[in-house]
Amino acid sequence: MKVSLGPRAVAIPMPAFLVASYDQDSKPNVMTVAWGGIVNSEPPYIGVSIRHHRWTYEGIEKHQAFTVNIPKTSQAQETDYVGIFSGKTHDKLAKAGLTAVKSDLVEAPYLQECPLVLECKVDKYLDLGTHRLYVGLILDVKVNENALTDGKIDIRKVDPLIFGPNQDYYQIGDFVAKAFSVGKSLK
Amino acid sequence: MKVSLGPRAVAIPMPAFLVASYDQDSKPNVMTVAWGGIVNSEPPYIGVSIRHHRWTYEGIEKHQAFTVNIPKTSQAQETDYVGIFSGKTHDKLAKAGLTAVKSDLVEAPYLQECPLVLECKVDKYLDLGTHRLYVGLILDVKVNENALTDGKIDIRKVDPLIFGPNQDYYQIGDFVAKAFSVGKSLK
Repeated sequence: MKVSLGPRAVAIPMPAFLVASYDQDSKPNVMTVAWGGIVNSEPPYIGVSIRHHRWTYEGIEKHQAFTVNIPKTSQAQETDYVGIFSGKTHDKLAKAGLTAVKSDLVEAPYLQECPLVLECKVDKYLDLGTHRLYVGLILDVKVNENALTDGKIDIRKVDPLIFGPNQDYYQIGDFVAKAFSVGKSLK
Repeated sequence: MKVSLGPRAVAIPMPAFLVASYDQDSKPNVMTVAWGGIVNSEPPYIGVSIRHHRWTYEGIEKHQAFTVNIPKTSQAQETDYVGIFSGKTHDKLAKAGLTAVKSDLVEAPYLQECPLVLECKVDKYLDLGTHRLYVGLILDVKVNENALTDGKIDIRKVDPLIFGPNQDYYQIGDFVAKAFSVGKSLK
């Protein structure tokens, strides 16, 4: 039996991306984004949606670049903090103990402390109401060496934060099945 | 120490959405989508990206609507199956034991067996290369009564499938912290 909750912005899972950019004064800035995800395979594009009044919006508009940094569960407090307060009035990186590193390929900083980092250049955007959806071309993916197993990103070692439907953070759970594999037998 | 993996389409977490639509012959069809997520708050929009050669693409083009159905971990095999094979040649719903229900508000079926369902009307799109990103206006969210706790969506009861970076499915893990709360003390 299904219950109708009406129109609302909810999906499961949602990410807890740390989106980093240089601000109007070319100072590193960061905010938390739950509205985002991969949107294309070739070229590799990621979408992140930012409210127009955000300080990060001004920075991305100016520099046309951002990084997506995946925080680990031990960074829940920092992740939450940079989502609550504005970089216009708070030195968020210093307070959160996050280190901005100059990206190799885009005019945006990445966060040294995050295990997985995507360097992105704004290629397109779409204004949708409250938010501007930025479509970023992923120019490089960087990962902590100790988050790899046999050269592949190990989700256990990344230990990512996941955003839940009631404004809560979760960790990743048990492995369930191999994709492009477990379903074949149903044919 | 970070290692560069080059440009690639990866983020953590990714969803395992079951996107359902009516096909060219107005028959219910479904496929798995990992490229997607919420993209706007007001109005509530969700983005799902579909390859142009997909049978689902034809169906969404014709009916301008789709539903996003969140599968539970016990549906990993069905979720994987409908992602591998085409509805053009396979009666995927029958094989997967999924029941198409006529939506109240959009010209797309939803899946009775999935605990969480979003009814969406295509409002905008963006062609990005391999994929067309559909921006769907969420007209209603439906949830199984037994997946609610105190009127709210309970992520434990939904028990959603999550898509990992190496083509694998995971379940949700432990609660970590409350958002818009745990970070306040860093101010």
